[in-house]
Amino acid sequence: MALKTPQQYIDSVKKLRPRVFIGGERVENLVERPNIKPVIDTMAKTYELALNPKYEDFIPATSHLTGEKISRWTHVPRSIDDLWKRRNLNLIMAQKTGSCNYRCMGQEALQILASVTYAMDQKLGTEYHKRFNNFLRYMQENDLAANMPQTDARGDRSKRPSEQEDPDSYLHVVEKRSDGIVVRGAKLHQVGAMVCHEHICAPFTPLHKGEEDYAVAFAIPNGTEGLTYICQSGPIEAERRQAQSIQELGIPEYGSIFTSMLVFDDVFVPWERVFMCGEVEFAADLLKKFASMHHVLCRGSCKVGFMDLMIGAAQTIAEYNGIATATHVRDKITEMIRIRETTEACTTAAVGNGKEDPPGSGVYFPNTMFSLMGSLNTHYGFPQVALLAADLAGGSVVTMPSERELQNPETSQYVRKYLKGVASVPTEYRMRMLKFLQHWTAGPQVAAMWDEGSLQVSRALVRGEALAVLEEKKKLAKELAGIKD
Amino acid sequence: MALKTPQQYIDSVKKLRPRVFIGGERVENLVERPNIKPVIDTMAKTYELALNPKYEDFIPATSHLTGEKISRWTHVPRSIDDLWKRRNLNLIMAQKTGSCNYRCMGQEALQILASVTYAMDQKLGTEYHKRFNNFLRYMQENDLAANMPQTDARGDRSKRPSEQEDPDSYLHVVEKRSDGIVVRGAKLHQVGAMVCHEHICAPFTPLHKGEEDYAVAFAIPNGTEGLTYICQSGPIEAERRQAQSIQELGIPEYGSIFTSMLVFDDVFVPWERVFMCGEVEFAADLLKKFASMHHVLCRGSCKVGFMDLMIGAAQTIAEYNGIATATHVRDKITEMIRIRETTEACTTAAVGNGKEDPPGSGVYFPNTMFSLMGSLNTHYGFPQVALLAADLAGGSVVTMPSERELQNPETSQYVRKYLKGVASVPTEYRMRMLKFLQHWTAGPQVAAMWDEGSLQVSRALVRGEALAVLEEKKKLAKELAGIKD
Amino acid sequence: MALKTPQQYIDSVKKLRPRVFIGGERVENLVERPNIKPVIDTMAKTYELALNPKYEDFIPATSHLTGEKISRWTHVPRSIDDLWKRRNLNLIMAQKTGSCNYRCMGQEALQILASVTYAMDQKLGTEYHKRFNNFLRYMQENDLAANMPQTDARGDRSKRPSEQEDPDSYLHVVEKRSDGIVVRGAKLHQVGAMVCHEHICAPFTPLHKGEEDYAVAFAIPNGTEGLTYICQSGPIEAERRQAQSIQELGIPEYGSIFTSMLVFDDVFVPWERVFMCGEVEFAADLLKKFASMHHVLCRGSCKVGFMDLMIGAAQTIAEYNGIATATHVRDKITEMIRIRETTEACTTAAVGNGKEDPPGSGVYFPNTMFSLMGSLNTHYGFPQVALLAADLAGGSVVTMPSERELQNPETSQYVRKYLKGVASVPTEYRMRMLKFLQHWTAGPQVAAMWDEGSLQVSRALVRGEALAVLEEKKKLAKELAGIKD
Amino acid sequence: MALKTPQQYIDSVKKLRPRVFIGGERVENLVERPNIKPVIDTMAKTYELALNPKYEDFIPATSHLTGEKISRWTHVPRSIDDLWKRRNLNLIMAQKTGSCNYRCMGQEALQILASVTYAMDQKLGTEYHKRFNNFLRYMQENDLAANMPQTDARGDRSKRPSEQEDPDSYLHVVEKRSDGIVVRGAKLHQVGAMVCHEHICAPFTPLHKGEEDYAVAFAIPNGTEGLTYICQSGPIEAERRQAQSIQELGIPEYGSIFTSMLVFDDVFVPWERVFMCGEVEFAADLLKKFASMHHVLCRGSCKVGFMDLMIGAAQTIAEYNGIATATHVRDKITEMIRIRETTEACTTAAVGNGKEDPPGSGVYFPNTMFSLMGSLNTHYGFPQVALLAADLAGGSVVTMPSERELQNPETSQYVRKYLKGVASVPTEYRMRMLKFLQHWTAGPQVAAMWDEGSLQVSRALVRGEALAVLEEKKKLAKELAGIKD
Repeated sequence: MALKTPQQYIDSVKKLRPRVFIGGERVENLVERPNIKPVIDTMAKTYELALNPKYEDFIPATSHLTGEKISRWTHVPRSIDDLWKRRNLNLIMAQKTGSCNYRCMGQEALQILASVTYAMDQKLGTEYHKRFNNFLRYMQENDLAANMPQTDARGDRSKRPSEQEDPDSYLHVVEKRSDGIVVRGAKLHQVGAMVCHEHICAPFTPLHKGEEDYAVAFAIPNGTEGLTYICQSGPIEAERRQAQSIQELGIPEYGSIFTSMLVFDDVFVPWERVFMCGEVEFAADLLKKFASMHHVLCRGSCKVGFMDLMIGAAQTIAEYNGIATATHVRDKITEMIRIRETTEACTTAAVGNGKEDPPGSGVYFPNTMFSLMGSLNTHYGFPQVALLAADLAGGSVVTMPSERELQNPETSQYVRKYLKGVASVPTEYRMRMLKFLQHWTAGPQVAAMWDEGSLQVSRALVRGEALAVLEEKKKLAKELAGIKD
Repeated sequence: MALKTPQQYIDSVKKLRPRVFIGGERVENLVERPNIKPVIDTMAKTYELALNPKYEDFIPATSHLTGEKISRWTHVPRSIDDLWKRRNLNLIMAQKTGSCNYRCMGQEALQILASVTYAMDQKLGTEYHKRFNNFLRYMQENDLAANMPQTDARGDRSKRPSEQEDPDSYLHVVEKRSDGIVVRGAKLHQVGAMVCHEHICAPFTPLHKGEEDYAVAFAIPNGTEGLTYICQSGPIEAERRQAQSIQELGIPEYGSIFTSMLVFDDVFVPWERVFMCGEVEFAADLLKKFASMHHVLCRGSCKVGFMDLMIGAAQTIAEYNGIATATHVRDKITEMIRIRETTEACTTAAVGNGKEDPPGSGVYFPNTMFSLMGSLNTHYGFPQVALLAADLAGGSVVTMPSERELQNPETSQYVRKYLKGVASVPTEYRMRMLKFLQHWTAGPQVAAMWDEGSLQVSRALVRGEALAVLEEKKKLAKELAGIKD
Repeated sequence: MALKTPQQYIDSVKKLRPRVFIGGERVENLVERPNIKPVIDTMAKTYELALNPKYEDFIPATSHLTGEKISRWTHVPRSIDDLWKRRNLNLIMAQKTGSCNYRCMGQEALQILASVTYAMDQKLGTEYHKRFNNFLRYMQENDLAANMPQTDARGDRSKRPSEQEDPDSYLHVVEKRSDGIVVRGAKLHQVGAMVCHEHICAPFTPLHKGEEDYAVAFAIPNGTEGLTYICQSGPIEAERRQAQSIQELGIPEYGSIFTSMLVFDDVFVPWERVFMCGEVEFAADLLKKFASMHHVLCRGSCKVGFMDLMIGAAQTIAEYNGIATATHVRDKITEMIRIRETTEACTTAAVGNGKEDPPGSGVYFPNTMFSLMGSLNTHYGFPQVALLAADLAGGSVVTMPSERELQNPETSQYVRKYLKGVASVPTEYRMRMLKFLQHWTAGPQVAAMWDEGSLQVSRALVRGEALAVLEEKKKLAKELAGIKD
Repeated sequence: MALKTPQQYIDSVKKLRPRVFIGGERVENLVERPNIKPVIDTMAKTYELALNPKYEDFIPATSHLTGEKISRWTHVPRSIDDLWKRRNLNLIMAQKTGSCNYRCMGQEALQILASVTYAMDQKLGTEYHKRFNNFLRYMQENDLAANMPQTDARGDRSKRPSEQEDPDSYLHVVEKRSDGIVVRGAKLHQVGAMVCHEHICAPFTPLHKGEEDYAVAFAIPNGTEGLTYICQSGPIEAERRQAQSIQELGIPEYGSIFTSMLVFDDVFVPWERVFMCGEVEFAADLLKKFASMHHVLCRGSCKVGFMDLMIGAAQTIAEYNGIATATHVRDKITEMIRIRETTEACTTAAVGNGKEDPPGSGVYFPNTMFSLMGSLNTHYGFPQVALLAADLAGGSVVTMPSERELQNPETSQYVRKYLKGVASVPTEYRMRMLKFLQHWTAGPQVAAMWDEGSLQVSRALVRGEALAVLEEKKKLAKELAGIKD
């Protein structure tokens, strides 16, 4: 079966019937809705690039199950070269859309479950891997888009899943039947869920004995009975609804990290789509593999692409303002580049040191320590890049009038005259670049901070990675200090 | 004449007829307009607090011209005690509204011109000070609100005013007549201009010989012929227009730093309201005095109040999330406090070391170096406070659904159940605190960075302050190094 | 009795017989010893400045006990003006010597005990305050120098005093006799102990019930039986011993933070010199008062003086190297000034908001929060100032040959020729300034980090200070968020 | 010819007769001199490891000239694998000695000249490459150690070589004769020069037309007539001279970054050892290649090894102090690891993206941008690692008595008792680890900052690397902003 065209994807969305709400209202027509259309257009872009001959060296892949040509978005990386191509997929999407690609975690879900189901079967004699491969083949053959809901509601964050007053604070099995299981709970911050074909769920917290009901992984189609999608609605969404032309927006066509909370109100999953059910001891392993891959793709790739855009925009606005050659401006641009290239280096090292995990599974993951390094450096550096970009743009990044004034005969000559920078650049260009920067520096991109969960979790993971080498380092120091204990 | 009541102020606004545009449309009714109403309500709050007996120890003042009781917003500080009370005025407004107070720079304009007109008359034998005092008495007796437009359009930022391709890039005199002058240009980023009674203009760039037309200071009433106000319009403004109840907003009643660009299209000013005209050598002095006062009031006081709000909100949300006692949470709160208290200390030192300037004028200014220290520390620290607050709030600060879902019978039970934190706190509270934090961390508060102009200007001012002491420091070092040159 | 002259002080040191060791050897002649002479010369400088008419406005003080003129080093601050003068005493010493003044904590001991003994007597009906005043009068009338040993040995840092395997890990009472007490333990990091006349001890850790033996404060003369002083010995000490002329050293005359560990091997203290014995509930109060005063004097004053020297030296070396006008050099100097002036502002605010504590005691302390702010900002900033100074000095700050080469006919012409910077400055000057900077940037000044105990303790103190205001901040945020709980 | 044994190297040093001065005195016996012995022992370690079967996979190499087995220290990298092995050579030496390896830049000299002489011959038809290969074969066949003097005296740093008052401020040709050239000048900060067999010189500043005399590269043996070596002498050197046993030192056997200034007083170089003479247009290229390689080896490898030692020591001392499990201690260790691993990632990426340069030369260099990233991150991070290590060690890292006290019967029981940490660890161990940390945190390691020249130079290089991609980034931003210019 061939790869989907963008139009085929959009047509497939038209057939979806998810129960979606935004701003207190039910959404009936996904495709025309101002807040959801950019998400669909971004997803369509993933299909478009997969067919673009320009990218045929890294976007199409070959299924290890069927040997057929498939999209890399449904491929499980089986070599360092695969990891590198997968990385570049996120980078190009970030550079071309300035947006979340909405399919990243769906692919990661396939990769993680390919590895963990293999490991479970090896150790426990279960049949999850076979089941999973059937599902994977289905995804590949139909070129479907998946997302992976990650963050549970979590209630009182100081308590474990099993200690919560409301047991539904974490997604869990409430009933096991002969034909399948019934699950209840909610997943927050879900990017693109309402326009993906499939949702792949898994636990994202280390689990203890006694928490078997929370150790559940499965896949269900969009719009399954019992699912409700409640969308975020803040200033950016309001602006997008009010815009009379997309030219008024910071990133006109795409440009939004749009999420929903996904509620599972007693949702049924048939056994053939259940990939983990009770194996608490594999939850921590699944989480670590997710971290290893997602940190390299999200903060290590998408954010690198976003930083490219901010650096390019900052340099452009400095030129429009006539200050591009001032020493302090050059130093600021250089500092932005330092931050960007540091993460690029970490990602390069993480991918270049990827490994099959577990051995025999055929599934590759990047080096976890280097993956985390890219992530932490982005965590600290990304806001600095945004602040530096804002600093170079100046106050108009916040105070600029709407582009509609350019069409207003009573104000257009004033705006055109007084928002001009250097004489050679049209005011429209300067206003658009300022609006573009507004999107990054005064907008919701602070979301970059939570894309992989909290800083504290990342630091704990670093600690874990480092434990082994700490002893080695101590030995080196003691040797030189002349301590023979 | 008595101090105005809030209602009297609002009534006076109803009589104003400025030519205001937003989003491409003319605004006719200022008082009901969703984007302008919070500005008016904030201004009304300044009048309300002035009449509140709770603050009678520092908000009312006594006019040095008439001996009458006046508002501190029209008072010129004449002692360190006055500076301290003036400072507290900004702080209380920031804490009570979470917003720009919109009258700060109007008061500063009176203070700066009281000093500079005195200095000009002393040195040049002009009569600006007498003229100015008449205007000041008028402001005090009628308890009027002024603003001071500061930032010129500036065109090519690498060029001086006199070198610009478009000479109107900086506000300047285009005609001198027997009865007054005619000015042309525009001032950007103007907070609250459309609902203030008076606009007080002055040059905000050091000027050279040959740039006499740019050395112009004057006052004109709101709505003077030739003035046009073109308002900012971004995501926050769009959201405010769409809100069906103010409860949906981050800071419901106030909560906006709303600006306009103010266009002067051949505006006439009579001589009795002209306070500088051609005295280029006083432009740098005026700028330095403005810096000394404004840095202590804006980044040194308002932002301190804003940090109070963010710290309070971060601590509250940590408690709502159940993590307030975790070590890393306590460390983050402590770091936020360190940043806040450092600026508080700098402001305290700046005010406590205030001086009359020039001697004989009776006008007091804070210590410039300490004023700049508060400002620079806020510049670096304020975004960190916001990032830490965002970190403690978690991803929902961006991804939260609208509060309207709580009224939607189809979603309210889901939202109520799954956005709950610790069991004892109602979900509404948690959602409102998240929305409040969204306003600060994902909103337009990045504007804090430009309130006193760019970082580079501040650093140049520090350099200037330090030049004298550098020689002293060199001497100390050489003495100890045994160098006798 | 008159103030001591420097020579009288030196003569008094000649009569002292402390049991001092350094580098494994007993020190017999303190005054001629290369490692101890600079300490004596620094102490002598405190006596010299007290007699210098240039400083008569702030160094001499009037005893509140006798009404006689005394040195400020034995004075207990009784007003904000006193605190300010006390502060300036540390600053001028730091600027003039580039060294610890060695008398700072001795004065603090008097101030703290004046307050705490008063508080104990008020609450418990003890007679400590009267005893203490007798001792204070003795100190003032004889113009004696005291030090205050602070840091206990502490053994296993995770355990309380009473939990240690070795009970002597904290200084404690081992016997109570009719005529006095016997104490055992050791105090580390003691600056200048061997050349001070008196040692004043107090507990520096919060104590619990059951730890009464550790709640002990007292004074004993230098060289009391049972005392042993074991000095630090590292690279700086070795260099000072080898120098053939003091010109070879970074800060020739003073320039060292020289410490010893002070061992108390069953030392007897008569009751009239015991100022606390068992009152565990006052230990935390004593610690907080110490913090309030010491943070303002040490990191808030001495380090400010040291930063003056580093800034002066960095500016000088930049001029010697010919790079003083480069933008990046000016930015670095400006950043050093920002760090210095921020602490200056905090200290100014701390002193300006000092208070009598406890009321009725007549003893003044600075504002604790602002005192801590100065300290934390120095903690973070001081190493940055040193790193920036090193950066401006360049590699020769480490690799420079000895000044002795200038006297060596075989090498002097080479050194003179090739270590020259700009043509107009003699090479000797450049070498001395580099050596001076070597002392600060490659030397032991990293000690600045522990002068007030660890960062973690400071942060805990900030937390304590902030607890009260946190609730107020939460209230402000809730009010604006519309939360009425 | 076989690789040299350590003893053969030491024997070869005994035959050298360089004219060396330290502290104003001539050094006759290099091998026994306390300041020079550790340098010789470190160099001997390079020979020892080359013969150690444990490292035979990466230290021995095969000469591309002769096919013989040679040391990697004389090898020119000819593949990415070679670059990786070369990198690991520096890392293992840093971990095993805690010292500069003293041979790093000598190897780099061979690599750079192999490339640049090839490029010159290709472009200009010269014969430098052939000459150079003869020299290279000689180095390889005799397993000789070289160093590369880098930093000129530079006089007034604001002036170019040809503008200096003293033309000798940069090393240059003063005479061309039929048999060779005569050079004059001096090179500062030279590590290990006096115990290397050969000195390889090259220009390290971009040169203009008219500065041909400064464009000179050549090799001369140690002790050539006209050469004088004047050594650094500071606190560390003094301590080493005074130590009665090496156990008293921080890094007993090695542990020093010991330099000299190398004076060229009309030194003759025969033509067969001249590898550049007047080709100013190749100076910038040579500098960039040096940066690319040296930044990856020095800050990207040696400093990584040093950070390993500091992390190991900090963890050990935290355990000795009983605080290793405290949250703030774990956070500090994790932050140290973040800094270390970030540079490791950059180095990994730089090496993994190495390229032949120029094509056809067979010589490989790392990716310059990633090489610079490792360097800049180390520049900012290395001092933080040292400060964190110092923070964890506590004040005793500065104030500790000499280890000789342990042998002094009058003090040993006190030191043993009161410098103990947790009960299970002998005091000697704790003291040695503190002394080890003193070396890093209070010692000369700040030298790390200049090993690759100043920060400003690195940032300029980054700027250069980034110029090409800036346009691409601008294009991406404009595309999304809808700007079609």
